[in-house]
Amino acid sequence: MDEHEPDEIRSWSGDFDPLADNAERRVLFAAFDSFRQYRRTAHMNTTHRRRQAFYALPSAHWQMLSEPPFSILDNFNRVDDAIDVNADIADAILTTGLSSFGLSANPDPNDPRENWHGTATQSDVNKAHSTLRQFYRDWSQEGQAERDVCYGPVLSDLQNEFGARIGSEDEDEVRVLVPGAGLGRLVFEICRQGFAAEGNEISYHQLLASSWILNHTLGPQKHALHPFALHFSNLLSREQQLQEVKIPDQHPGTAMVEAQANSAPFGRMSMSAADFTVLYTNPSNKEVFDAVATVFFIDTAPNLIRYIEAIRHCLKPNGLWINVGPLLWHFEDGSNRSQHGGSEEDQGDQGIGEPGNVELTEAEVFCLVERMGFAIEKREAPHERSMCGYIQDPNSMLQPLYRPSHWVARKQNV
Amino acid sequence: MDEHEPDEIRSWSGDFDPLADNAERRVLFAAFDSFRQYRRTAHMNTTHRRRQAFYALPSAHWQMLSEPPFSILDNFNRVDDAIDVNADIADAILTTGLSSFGLSANPDPNDPRENWHGTATQSDVNKAHSTLRQFYRDWSQEGQAERDVCYGPVLSDLQNEFGARIGSEDEDEVRVLVPGAGLGRLVFEICRQGFAAEGNEISYHQLLASSWILNHTLGPQKHALHPFALHFSNLLSREQQLQEVKIPDQHPGTAMVEAQANSAPFGRMSMSAADFTVLYTNPSNKEVFDAVATVFFIDTAPNLIRYIEAIRHCLKPNGLWINVGPLLWHFEDGSNRSQHGGSEEDQGDQGIGEPGNVELTEAEVFCLVERMGFAIEKREAPHERSMCGYIQDPNSMLQPLYRPSHWVARKQNV
Repeated sequence: MDEHEPDEIRSWSGDFDPLADNAERRVLFAAFDSFRQYRRTAHMNTTHRRRQAFYALPSAHWQMLSEPPFSILDNFNRVDDAIDVNADIADAILTTGLSSFGLSANPDPNDPRENWHGTATQSDVNKAHSTLRQFYRDWSQEGQAERDVCYGPVLSDLQNEFGARIGSEDEDEVRVLVPGAGLGRLVFEICRQGFAAEGNEISYHQLLASSWILNHTLGPQKHALHPFALHFSNLLSREQQLQEVKIPDQHPGTAMVEAQANSAPFGRMSMSAADFTVLYTNPSNKEVFDAVATVFFIDTAPNLIRYIEAIRHCLKPNGLWINVGPLLWHFEDGSNRSQHGGSEEDQGDQGIGEPGNVELTEAEVFCLVERMGFAIEKREAPHERSMCGYIQDPNSMLQPLYRPSHWVARKQNV
Repeated sequence: MDEHEPDEIRSWSGDFDPLADNAERRVLFAAFDSFRQYRRTAHMNTTHRRRQAFYALPSAHWQMLSEPPFSILDNFNRVDDAIDVNADIADAILTTGLSSFGLSANPDPNDPRENWHGTATQSDVNKAHSTLRQFYRDWSQEGQAERDVCYGPVLSDLQNEFGARIGSEDEDEVRVLVPGAGLGRLVFEICRQGFAAEGNEISYHQLLASSWILNHTLGPQKHALHPFALHFSNLLSREQQLQEVKIPDQHPGTAMVEAQANSAPFGRMSMSAADFTVLYTNPSNKEVFDAVATVFFIDTAPNLIRYIEAIRHCLKPNGLWINVGPLLWHFEDGSNRSQHGGSEEDQGDQGIGEPGNVELTEAEVFCLVERMGFAIEKREAPHERSMCGYIQDPNSMLQPLYRPSHWVARKQNV
């Protein structure tokens, strides 16, 4: 998406240079290293240890299960092939990411400011795995059903409120903020409607992956992904395990070119890499957005009050806050704090790394939102809610389904 | 259930005395200790650390959230009350369990053959917590929907095959084995239909809890349980979190007395405490059961072939194997081996502690069952399957739902 390269570069090289801060550089390096390690760790943890466990069965047993119709060993080989296909995506994310930071794929091992190899922890590697799986949800045709439940209401609410302003010469652009933008699909869909969308994301795993899919893939359906290949439980058949999807189902660059050719509106797109509560309570972000869309986001807050303060601060008077999501509080045990390093001396900027946390019910969230200067104009009753999986194989014998809350609040003028 | 006291005593004091084996005694002691620790660990992990995290919020925030309509601190107090109600059940399980083994509640701390205090690991304590929650599924009216999906098909299959034999003077009793009997509800329901049911269970947590509910509660609805009080995510309201259920919804002793008064059949009930694959491949168990009912059980096998061998061995010719459940393989990483100690010198008896494991798909399970001497007479297609939670709050915004497989196989005469 050539038109947006300047935005991308700005987002990495703006006010804050992660390479200049030791703690932040460590987090970035670990994200790079986790994508580098995807191929090796996936083979090791998925097929290698399963082959060992398989050969540890009594020999008559593993021999029978090696032959048709079971052919368990052949399936391990097919899973290895699927892992290699997935790992090609991890490598592509790594390559474009290193390039955008001017880092070498083979750094000087003795220079700690350059050498990112070997810095990933198990937790970083797990994040690389889950980030790759997320392409199923955000950028495959097969993930459409999950997106319809989560992004559909946001797009419809934005259209109802601001649709008339699109294409009007007299009106300013409609600016929408998407905190927790993840792999960027909602940001892209909002721009496709003609609105200007700014995604905010704190995870380098997500930022590197979204930068690749938004800016560096060559066209629609160019990359194969096996989102469920690494999981061996609750399967009806091996075909189910090895299902392949193609990404991106919609190619951002192509979509923009088509919009221009048809004189259709396509909004400005940008991404910010920062702690949400810190960046959007900054004076430069006072009353600049017409709407904030939080999707599967508010339960990442240890202290929801901070999120509400930031949303209120950056919304224009009468601005709209649209929310879709459950309340799976991420910070229950305080063990899952900000993945970014942050500067330890700067207590005022610690954002979600601030101590303390609380887990509210939906009824309490409604009270808090209204008490903090919003009027809730719309809320779905529990029985009206659609259910959806989260990166969920629809054929699995286990379906963890969300019944996300959907509501719309308007900033009140006090 | 006085009539069954002899059975209960036999099950603890039969061929194998767990107190005589060091490793086995250690596992039993840890189970006792985990119920003793329920009250303290639940308060500590649930409310104590949440109060700390709450007071770590900025003081203006926690003060606002302490007042109505939030009253977060009052809710912590209500959760503490709910924990105490649950802990009364843990204490009752402990008291009846110690008594049946002739152990003291206050053992000599210097005698390792007596002193069971302080032996539970974190994993043991977690098992005590999940065992208590399981009463929701097996012994509350509210758990009926989950039981209907899982036990309903078994009862209906048994009735179709053996119903005509009930109450007939000429016929022997119909003997049904329930491996992984858990808290005993399916065993009880099978006996209520007039069949003789033998439950098998390896977990002392489950055995102690099932012994209490089957033999030692005073009547229906005598004990309150707050199954969801310890969980703070995906709640619509606090009422939902603090929901109370009463157990047992059906009192086993009362049900038996009523059956006798009405001259209705009530089958013989027994429980065995052992590794399934070891006990039921024993010559004493050759061809003694008319049916085996496995519910949410076969995926506990590291090596399903061993389970099938045991089922085939203990079934009479033409006997029926009824299965309901998903394929959430429990042994994926080999880290979850037999909870019982086992005798290390006796390699032949290690049962599910044997090395090696494999995870099959449903299609592969069907092939294996038929290859090993069964004919599958009935199987539900995926679209025919009912969904059910597993100890699931039906109002939660997250619903992990199973679509369990249900099939019936008949032992072939070779």
